[in-house]
Amino acid sequence: MSDKTSNQMWGGRFAAGPDAIMEAINASIGFDKRMAKQDITGSRAHAAMLAAQGIIDPKDAEAIREGLLTVLSEIEGGSFEYSTALEDIHMNVEARLREIVGPTAGRLHTARSRNDQVATDFKLWVRDQFDAFEGGLLALMKALLGQAEAGADWVMPGFTHLQTAQPVTWGHHMMAYVEMFARDLSRVRDARKRMNECPLGSAALAGTGFDIDRHMTAAELGFDRPTANSLDAVSDRDFGLEFLSAASICAMHLSRMAEELVIWSSAQFRFVTLSDRFSTGSSIMPQKKNPDAAELIRAKIGRIFGANVALMMVMKGLPLAYSKDMQEDKEQVFDAADNLMLALAAMEGMVKDMSANRPQLEAAAASGFSTATDLADWLVRELNLPFRDAHHVTGALVAKAEAKGCDLPELTLEDMTSVHDGITEAVYGVLGVHNSVASRLSYGGTAPTRVREQVARWKEVLA
Amino acid sequence: MSDKTSNQMWGGRFAAGPDAIMEAINASIGFDKRMAKQDITGSRAHAAMLAAQGIIDPKDAEAIREGLLTVLSEIEGGSFEYSTALEDIHMNVEARLREIVGPTAGRLHTARSRNDQVATDFKLWVRDQFDAFEGGLLALMKALLGQAEAGADWVMPGFTHLQTAQPVTWGHHMMAYVEMFARDLSRVRDARKRMNECPLGSAALAGTGFDIDRHMTAAELGFDRPTANSLDAVSDRDFGLEFLSAASICAMHLSRMAEELVIWSSAQFRFVTLSDRFSTGSSIMPQKKNPDAAELIRAKIGRIFGANVALMMVMKGLPLAYSKDMQEDKEQVFDAADNLMLALAAMEGMVKDMSANRPQLEAAAASGFSTATDLADWLVRELNLPFRDAHHVTGALVAKAEAKGCDLPELTLEDMTSVHDGITEAVYGVLGVHNSVASRLSYGGTAPTRVREQVARWKEVLA
Amino acid sequence: MSDKTSNQMWGGRFAAGPDAIMEAINASIGFDKRMAKQDITGSRAHAAMLAAQGIIDPKDAEAIREGLLTVLSEIEGGSFEYSTALEDIHMNVEARLREIVGPTAGRLHTARSRNDQVATDFKLWVRDQFDAFEGGLLALMKALLGQAEAGADWVMPGFTHLQTAQPVTWGHHMMAYVEMFARDLSRVRDARKRMNECPLGSAALAGTGFDIDRHMTAAELGFDRPTANSLDAVSDRDFGLEFLSAASICAMHLSRMAEELVIWSSAQFRFVTLSDRFSTGSSIMPQKKNPDAAELIRAKIGRIFGANVALMMVMKGLPLAYSKDMQEDKEQVFDAADNLMLALAAMEGMVKDMSANRPQLEAAAASGFSTATDLADWLVRELNLPFRDAHHVTGALVAKAEAKGCDLPELTLEDMTSVHDGITEAVYGVLGVHNSVASRLSYGGTAPTRVREQVARWKEVLA
Amino acid sequence: MSDKTSNQMWGGRFAAGPDAIMEAINASIGFDKRMAKQDITGSRAHAAMLAAQGIIDPKDAEAIREGLLTVLSEIEGGSFEYSTALEDIHMNVEARLREIVGPTAGRLHTARSRNDQVATDFKLWVRDQFDAFEGGLLALMKALLGQAEAGADWVMPGFTHLQTAQPVTWGHHMMAYVEMFARDLSRVRDARKRMNECPLGSAALAGTGFDIDRHMTAAELGFDRPTANSLDAVSDRDFGLEFLSAASICAMHLSRMAEELVIWSSAQFRFVTLSDRFSTGSSIMPQKKNPDAAELIRAKIGRIFGANVALMMVMKGLPLAYSKDMQEDKEQVFDAADNLMLALAAMEGMVKDMSANRPQLEAAAASGFSTATDLADWLVRELNLPFRDAHHVTGALVAKAEAKGCDLPELTLEDMTSVHDGITEAVYGVLGVHNSVASRLSYGGTAPTRVREQVARWKEVLA
Repeated sequence: MSDKTSNQMWGGRFAAGPDAIMEAINASIGFDKRMAKQDITGSRAHAAMLAAQGIIDPKDAEAIREGLLTVLSEIEGGSFEYSTALEDIHMNVEARLREIVGPTAGRLHTARSRNDQVATDFKLWVRDQFDAFEGGLLALMKALLGQAEAGADWVMPGFTHLQTAQPVTWGHHMMAYVEMFARDLSRVRDARKRMNECPLGSAALAGTGFDIDRHMTAAELGFDRPTANSLDAVSDRDFGLEFLSAASICAMHLSRMAEELVIWSSAQFRFVTLSDRFSTGSSIMPQKKNPDAAELIRAKIGRIFGANVALMMVMKGLPLAYSKDMQEDKEQVFDAADNLMLALAAMEGMVKDMSANRPQLEAAAASGFSTATDLADWLVRELNLPFRDAHHVTGALVAKAEAKGCDLPELTLEDMTSVHDGITEAVYGVLGVHNSVASRLSYGGTAPTRVREQVARWKEVLA
Repeated sequence: MSDKTSNQMWGGRFAAGPDAIMEAINASIGFDKRMAKQDITGSRAHAAMLAAQGIIDPKDAEAIREGLLTVLSEIEGGSFEYSTALEDIHMNVEARLREIVGPTAGRLHTARSRNDQVATDFKLWVRDQFDAFEGGLLALMKALLGQAEAGADWVMPGFTHLQTAQPVTWGHHMMAYVEMFARDLSRVRDARKRMNECPLGSAALAGTGFDIDRHMTAAELGFDRPTANSLDAVSDRDFGLEFLSAASICAMHLSRMAEELVIWSSAQFRFVTLSDRFSTGSSIMPQKKNPDAAELIRAKIGRIFGANVALMMVMKGLPLAYSKDMQEDKEQVFDAADNLMLALAAMEGMVKDMSANRPQLEAAAASGFSTATDLADWLVRELNLPFRDAHHVTGALVAKAEAKGCDLPELTLEDMTSVHDGITEAVYGVLGVHNSVASRLSYGGTAPTRVREQVARWKEVLA
Repeated sequence: MSDKTSNQMWGGRFAAGPDAIMEAINASIGFDKRMAKQDITGSRAHAAMLAAQGIIDPKDAEAIREGLLTVLSEIEGGSFEYSTALEDIHMNVEARLREIVGPTAGRLHTARSRNDQVATDFKLWVRDQFDAFEGGLLALMKALLGQAEAGADWVMPGFTHLQTAQPVTWGHHMMAYVEMFARDLSRVRDARKRMNECPLGSAALAGTGFDIDRHMTAAELGFDRPTANSLDAVSDRDFGLEFLSAASICAMHLSRMAEELVIWSSAQFRFVTLSDRFSTGSSIMPQKKNPDAAELIRAKIGRIFGANVALMMVMKGLPLAYSKDMQEDKEQVFDAADNLMLALAAMEGMVKDMSANRPQLEAAAASGFSTATDLADWLVRELNLPFRDAHHVTGALVAKAEAKGCDLPELTLEDMTSVHDGITEAVYGVLGVHNSVASRLSYGGTAPTRVREQVARWKEVLA
Repeated sequence: MSDKTSNQMWGGRFAAGPDAIMEAINASIGFDKRMAKQDITGSRAHAAMLAAQGIIDPKDAEAIREGLLTVLSEIEGGSFEYSTALEDIHMNVEARLREIVGPTAGRLHTARSRNDQVATDFKLWVRDQFDAFEGGLLALMKALLGQAEAGADWVMPGFTHLQTAQPVTWGHHMMAYVEMFARDLSRVRDARKRMNECPLGSAALAGTGFDIDRHMTAAELGFDRPTANSLDAVSDRDFGLEFLSAASICAMHLSRMAEELVIWSSAQFRFVTLSDRFSTGSSIMPQKKNPDAAELIRAKIGRIFGANVALMMVMKGLPLAYSKDMQEDKEQVFDAADNLMLALAAMEGMVKDMSANRPQLEAAAASGFSTATDLADWLVRELNLPFRDAHHVTGALVAKAEAKGCDLPELTLEDMTSVHDGITEAVYGVLGVHNSVASRLSYGGTAPTRVREQVARWKEVLA
């Protein structure tokens, strides 16, 4: 994204002619400077290997390695001056290195090319993002576990079609999101492992005749091994696409939770109160509290999945090995990563801060004869009624309760037996929302017992 | 896109706690400052209308209008200091206005809200982009017309499946792109017209009780009329989506042409030579000339259509009227517009500069018995053979030519009549690539005559 | 979509070897038979033109035209036997025609090719869909007008961020959707007009040497004119993409309305009651009414926009003129069109059937001091207070009301003047939801007067 | 996709009124019948578990299990009659079961609901597709290995920007695709493992009060374990999205290879000859051979990634647990899976059949001074020249060769030493394309030795 304040600037620049247009479309330094640290780290490993293999002089290697540290400190300190004429971060770093160490700097580019260098830098950058992604997920899962533990037995409506279906527990609902984010975590770890192969030394596309040790540079840079095919190594962007795929699915999960928070914050639901920190208010309408952060999180799936579409489209139909089209890879991944990390952090903050409105949740859970299925199940289980009959009896009892203006637990035993004479006092053990949730003890069910087991399990896993 | 040089910065900022996260996700000043001019233009029109309607004092309006001009000059001059704490461009401008004109500044916000203000600003910005889009298309079409006029009768292969099918003319091929970009132009004009309604005065969502004149502000800002429903006006982003749709289809056209230029520039095709300005070379391989600009243009469809996907996904399922999700609209459109204008300008430059390799094109056109269909058509047309028989005769003649190692025009009349005795000397009038293209005189056909008519027509249209 | 009942069938078929695979991937008759009528219509026009131009014998043309009618009646009657070996609808029709009229059938393919034929057929099909799209929109708009007219003065909450912001009218909310669908309608009409050029006669890609009259076939088939460039004509699929773009934006509008209906149907909102026809119930939970149709409509944007992405991706980077990739165009457009028409019809049905829960809507509109902004505006307008002061006074009055447990209209004049002594009896004229909406008389505002004007205007337009 | 032959049918059906519309939008039997086998397998496991847990009578369970086998055989035999009124495959199977075994059939639905049933069925179906995906990848990789082994030392141009950069080997190029598809394979295996948890027993959303054994049904159905949260289990469609993500990346790889095959088949490249089975010819142009299958494979990424976009968009922002929107999941995955398997099989067939045009490949590899970088590297390596100087010397030698009209290996030693006197006879050891590729011995490099090692490694892995 450019920082121009008006479109007219384009006209102005382009009036300068084709050279200005080519510079504008071709240069990448505006964005790839974010990979400065990765570029320098990769170059330092390469220089050490070249010396170890006797390809360059150890003293030259040492000078280069020290010079690169100087460049890095200038960049991190903010004193480095980027040049668009030098096109990209690699050339900017190399040019500055030459100023610092002299012509020796030229030895650094032995046995590598821009193609394997950029692939290595970008992989290192993306790998860092996978780690940040993992960190963001773990923090969010812990926040959810905190809510789940506190509210393992708070009753709330379980919805299908946004209609109350059966009572569930707050803890169970929170743990549903823990499961979702756990799948994201699993995907992140698989993807990070898969992409952890080092392209450095693939050179332009065919490998090199220098006697390099690719296993050494791979190990130095924390990769599990070098890539096995040089053509593939410089033309592969799967790791970026897989980052975007995993980020998109996670953003989808976030969008679902954000949607719930927006709905739950409405005056009509009042299921939760979000903290002021993640909302904005109105100076004159005291009850209005806009769930801005939740809405912005909900929207992030667009941006992140949009980036996924963009890179997939760029890669479609590109012949091997490197094509300039692939320069469009970085901005998409940078932007998606930034927004994903932000969304994860904001959701973590909101989850930590939010407070459930327990009375409202419980009242909503109890409305609409939400334990009718518990009653029907009881008839099947205890009286061995076929399902169809059980539903018929239940329907009749609900109708009776509706006529009396009461809920199912308020029906008398006489009311019950007048519809089916096999019903006993024991039926009251499954009616009412607390009985309902307590009874759903199947593995993975909403019973507080089950929820607490899952919370305990996850706390151990995440410890 | 942020300008951080390393991901670690996020950690650092976020360590500052929830407030930093909320500021990072919530503030829009980082990007919406690009609408500064539109914001000020809209406010000046609003102030004038308020005064004309007697809602504010004319002197106050004048002070506001002058103050806004001062703010604009500060912004354009680069001396304006943006504040993230003030969140967006609207608040930044208003706060500075208050410093300049004092409390009177507060009168400006009478009878409007942030919701209609941002909708108006963004529409004005997008409208400017439609105009820039139109300009870019016209310039590119003119460049194509130049090529078409010069090469109205240059012969080249017409491909299907990237296999030579029939000879066509260079001019005809160039004019095919003129037709495509003409459809883009038509789409742009329709969309610009459709979106040209002014939301200002819709207030938060319900309209206002002040006696405002929305027709006056609409006219002042160049809109055809005010929007007819205030709820719709603040929740509508169709104009952004339609810009992105039109931009995406145009980017698809550009990707097709760019693909052709990449293929045509290969050593195997050598159909065109791109200028050095839009290529990069190799210091040691003199014939290598990488079509960088063409590849980058080919890739832009990813970025532009990715933005389309992003905004469509953001808008999916949003209840009326305004939701904060919609703040994600601007960066997508900004980035797509920047890249589209750049791609159009680069393609225009390449088209102007490129030179067709006529001998290579003609040789390729003549290979593979490319005028066999002309022969078959002649048999149908002149000898009244049924298609099936004509194909049979043609196949036999091609086989004969192949056996003799010559092309169809080199066959003798005896060769011809030995296969079908009705063939006459006249058949040579359709054989050979020049005869072939000259004969295809149907409306829209590739004959130089037809091409020149189309060039003339378009030159008049675009004059 | 295939009709296999199990994946194992693939293995079975493919075991038959490469030929079965090629047939499976190559044949299009499974889907392009939907264009049978368009194919026959196009061929009949072509035959008539060939005769009129003296290219084929009038008797042959008549035989062909009659034979084609016979084929069409067989297809419409269900007795036509499709052959996969004949690959596509064009070959299937032609082969059957040959059976009916003999070798004369071969004359039909004079001066055309499969490339211009398929482009013509598909354009005719898509044009029909634009008409169906227009019909669906008009019907839905009329249903919305019906609701708007009935409820022009019913009060409901106007939301931002799903928080009550200001009261609006039911009619105004319905009319917001009329505006959205009106933009869709405008897009449909523009696109239909733009695509209405006839490719027939472009032949394989270069036009033809036969003396055809493309204007005649164009007119016969209801096109405005023939396409102007034969290369473009056979490689263009803009009309499909533009149909999908327009359908996607419309589907986005439908998703927003569907989302509102789902939320409004929840037990917590109870703003509307959907008819049983478009809902499903529960045998034992009488109040549970699942808004199935609304949810399915909400989902259709995925399918329709997914088709848009698919076709855009197919077209990316295709060199001219025809590539087999383009065979993937039809199924996407077919599926999107079917689902769009279904969604429009279902939404029309739901809108007609639904009933607003007026007491619930009005109560919700009145909650949360929703007319506080009306009060603030009154202070600015009548007492000429600066905005900031007006907000301060309003905040104090809201706090007072909150303390007294009443709404703003229930405050006494003494309460009012104790905060600001300029307040008069007249202030009550803007408090309360009915006063609030009645006062918002600005053009496009929510006042019943304005709503009725818009309803009247649209009834006239749609009459 | 529907099988209507004309759009007018919609009008007709819809004229039948709202009920017909609701049936059309709501019923899923048209597509979910593809899950019949999975549905029956799941139900049989459920019945066995219910009996084992004493929840239903063992005799009833046995009757149900036998009855389900009968239903399956009817479906597989084609005699089963589907009913749209029964909406989906689950109801169709259940209704038929009831006809076969009587009211006992009703016992089957104890302790489960449609929500966990459909999630289980769909997971089983998708799991089968992951297995088919794996099979398709393995077969394709073996075909590529065959080509690589045969052509481990065949020389061809290595391209960047579709410009010859350096010579590589045919085997190396084939092995690049093996690496790509190996990553796909790895993704498939990870995803299959991650999704292999059984939702059955999650009931509607809250679990059940029946004493079921979810571990037993999970094991019976080949799942690693039951899902741990019932709300998540019925609202999760990650497995479908992850299938689509993996399929999309694989389809991208296929599109790149297909693009290469299309370009390589052009008359200008003539790098490969595709078999007639996967091409189509022209009756009159003998050399024209259209690479139809390659083009169709290239296009499949649109369809498959379009499905990914569709499902992601459907899932965006859905509150828990089940919403009817999710019914849109199946058709997308079905269609993507069908097309992916077809594309993999077609590519396997093409790779097996295709023959490399070795003389053409070698000639292309040698053109353009493609071993200039080898010469420069030699100067650095052997003469210890700095890179910059080595490039200068190489450039001068290339210029000399160009002037003499020869390639680098044809320069005499005198030519060489006249530019730099340190050059020795040994330089010829790296010039020429065979020397060049043989020298690139770095790990992952293009040298035949390295290629053969990789082929051997993969043959072992895939054995």
